[in-house]
Amino acid sequence: DMSIDCISTTTLIRLPGLIDCHVHLREPGDEHKEDIVSGTGSALAGGITMVLAMPNTKPALTNETVLEMTEKLYEKKALCDYGLFMGASIDNAKAVVDIAHRCVGLKMYLNTTFGDLKLDNMESWMKHFETWPPNIPIVAHAENQTVASILCLAEIYSRSVHIAHVARRDEILLIRAAKNKGLLVTCEVTPHHLFLHRDNIQNILKAHGNMKGFCHVKPELQTSDDCKALWDNMDVIDCIATDHAPHTLDEKSNKENPPPGFSGLQTVLPLLLTAVHDGKLTMDQLIEKMYTNPKRIFNLPDQGDDTFIEVDMERRSTVDDKSLFTKAAWTPFIGMMLRGSVHRVVLRGEVVFVDGQVLAEQGTGRNIVQLRGESNHAKKIK
Amino acid sequence: DMSIDCISTTTLIRLPGLIDCHVHLREPGDEHKEDIVSGTGSALAGGITMVLAMPNTKPALTNETVLEMTEKLYEKKALCDYGLFMGASIDNAKAVVDIAHRCVGLKMYLNTTFGDLKLDNMESWMKHFETWPPNIPIVAHAENQTVASILCLAEIYSRSVHIAHVARRDEILLIRAAKNKGLLVTCEVTPHHLFLHRDNIQNILKAHGNMKGFCHVKPELQTSDDCKALWDNMDVIDCIATDHAPHTLDEKSNKENPPPGFSGLQTVLPLLLTAVHDGKLTMDQLIEKMYTNPKRIFNLPDQGDDTFIEVDMERRSTVDDKSLFTKAAWTPFIGMMLRGSVHRVVLRGEVVFVDGQVLAEQGTGRNIVQLRGESNHAKKIK
Ligand SMILES: [Zn+2]
Ligand SMILES: [Zn+2]
Ligand SMILES: [Zn+2]
Ligand SMILES: [Zn+2]
Ligand SMILES: [Zn+2]
Ligand SMILES: [Zn+2]
Ligand SMILES: [Zn+2]
Ligand SMILES: [Zn+2]
Repeated sequence: DMSIDCISTTTLIRLPGLIDCHVHLREPGDEHKEDIVSGTGSALAGGITMVLAMPNTKPALTNETVLEMTEKLYEKKALCDYGLFMGASIDNAKAVVDIAHRCVGLKMYLNTTFGDLKLDNMESWMKHFETWPPNIPIVAHAENQTVASILCLAEIYSRSVHIAHVARRDEILLIRAAKNKGLLVTCEVTPHHLFLHRDNIQNILKAHGNMKGFCHVKPELQTSDDCKALWDNMDVIDCIATDHAPHTLDEKSNKENPPPGFSGLQTVLPLLLTAVHDGKLTMDQLIEKMYTNPKRIFNLPDQGDDTFIEVDMERRSTVDDKSLFTKAAWTPFIGMMLRGSVHRVVLRGEVVFVDGQVLAEQGTGRNIVQLRGESNHAKKIK
Repeated sequence: DMSIDCISTTTLIRLPGLIDCHVHLREPGDEHKEDIVSGTGSALAGGITMVLAMPNTKPALTNETVLEMTEKLYEKKALCDYGLFMGASIDNAKAVVDIAHRCVGLKMYLNTTFGDLKLDNMESWMKHFETWPPNIPIVAHAENQTVASILCLAEIYSRSVHIAHVARRDEILLIRAAKNKGLLVTCEVTPHHLFLHRDNIQNILKAHGNMKGFCHVKPELQTSDDCKALWDNMDVIDCIATDHAPHTLDEKSNKENPPPGFSGLQTVLPLLLTAVHDGKLTMDQLIEKMYTNPKRIFNLPDQGDDTFIEVDMERRSTVDDKSLFTKAAWTPFIGMMLRGSVHRVVLRGEVVFVDGQVLAEQGTGRNIVQLRGESNHAKKIK
């Protein structure tokens, strides 16, 4: 099976270049964990042609200086398209309004996680909801009842909010009820919360000397009941996003204080294709949650016909750490037997990935803010 | 001043019998802290003719058996009118629907406090919002962002919610914004959060050997900034309620684990009359927040002309522990110099308190559920 030449198989199908609306590429500041080249390369290898990058870098992306620096880094290095999130801080609500149009959204950290962007008090939440432009999304890291809290603010300020990495039964049931009532909320779920839970992490532990750090992620892996609730409420889930959050083997091996986070860019599509193969997900749902919905929610530019990916629906593989492009040279999905893999990725007519090789040159990726402008310009001159 | 015979002063004015929509009278189960007689006596001495009693008794009032027992105790003993709250538990959402009409509201504990009625997960909150009759209030112990969480649930289920003991700037600003947007929310503030904060508790500490337990209350006393925000947003506060939560001197002296709570029934009116005297509050606001609004929010029966209180607007006093009727023989307001006191309380034509003496007999108080029925009946036969 593994030796079949993909060209000769009949199982190659074409999909849109996927959009991952939640990644941490660690540059600037933590380039030993990941950098823009390794991160966007890992994206291409995963069939993802556009990533939306989170602002908890070092320094954090919370002002124009860091935005400018980060834009330049991506412009020079990115292998796939990208958008940048502005981070909400306790005191930048007013200052960021003028540069909001250069960002794909505002990220608000409402619970403790990696970095120090946590907003403790509701008054600071309210200030951001008051000032951030209504047509640019707000994304909230909100867990448990904090999901309800931030939905309340969205309702009070007559705007929508996107809930990152929904992980619990409680959260998805609340979002279902809120959507039923007509509240403006969208949400994403990660592959690790869909495929891993507290009772099926033997592989991760076995591969890493039983060190708990390798199972540590925010939000934490939940019970099998929570996991089942996500699958049972798939119709409520707008996006599947990796929350790709790389840390090195050394860091995850720290027994006292391992940082939270998993890599995910290269494994998400094979995991979802396997779910399609197993009848747990339809191909339409896969496309909706990793292309159509993120595009709509984040006002992303249309892809031309010359951007697409080809996947081999039948190719089997066992997840291992060796074929990863991410600097986090390990994966929590290790040992899983998957069916379906990325064969080729084409971005604006250029083959940027094929047969396990990333071919894109640095600077191939474009900022979605510029792509948007060009697409608007093109429409106008038509 | 103190020796003037009140009959001969010209400063006696008549007010409605006040309504305290949040008290803990500790019976059944903790009668050493308070019982129905001492608690309702303390109410009368404070100018309060109606109390709404919380369900965190022992056993907790979360089912028909305890409701029945508690109704009987109050019927026999109460010196003032009363209503009983049902406690929301993790698994009684369906069972309490049939007895909801015998209660004045459903109390939901969403944060940690005295007792074990805390509801941890949103799914249990949702079940109560789904089933509890929409015309009977839900009261939430919700602090910080939990206020926003429960407002979200109220919005999703198209019903109102009453927020108990708002204590923080954050909370009152959120409630202001929510009311502006038209969300169905009402709230109450305690006298201790209005008159005490972290920087003015010297008197309490001095009177009690610097033992922190005497300042411990849920929600905790906040900063002077939080306290100021409550006064600045007085127009958003629907009710002033004591959250009378008596514990004995011995219990509060426990250094490891003192229980949270203050008594408040006898001090609230003198404190508020002093605020009126000082121009911080109008008499109209006092009546609105301790009579008109609680009556409206909790659908309480009208008082007849033969129920009222008389207060001496000018009488000065220094708060001490000695003249308290509550079994919690201490007060956090100790040493405060107040102006204004209760002279006489008349309930259905009967003088039930005068000049420091409680005259009501046990059983004088009526259940508001019955009073409501009689008032409806009276209207019908007219
Ligand atoms: Zn090939
Ligand atoms: Zn997060
Ligand atoms: Zn993240
Ligand atoms: Zn490994
Ligand atoms: Zn007198
Ligand atoms: Zn409370
Ligand atoms: Zn209370
Ligand atoms: Zn004392």
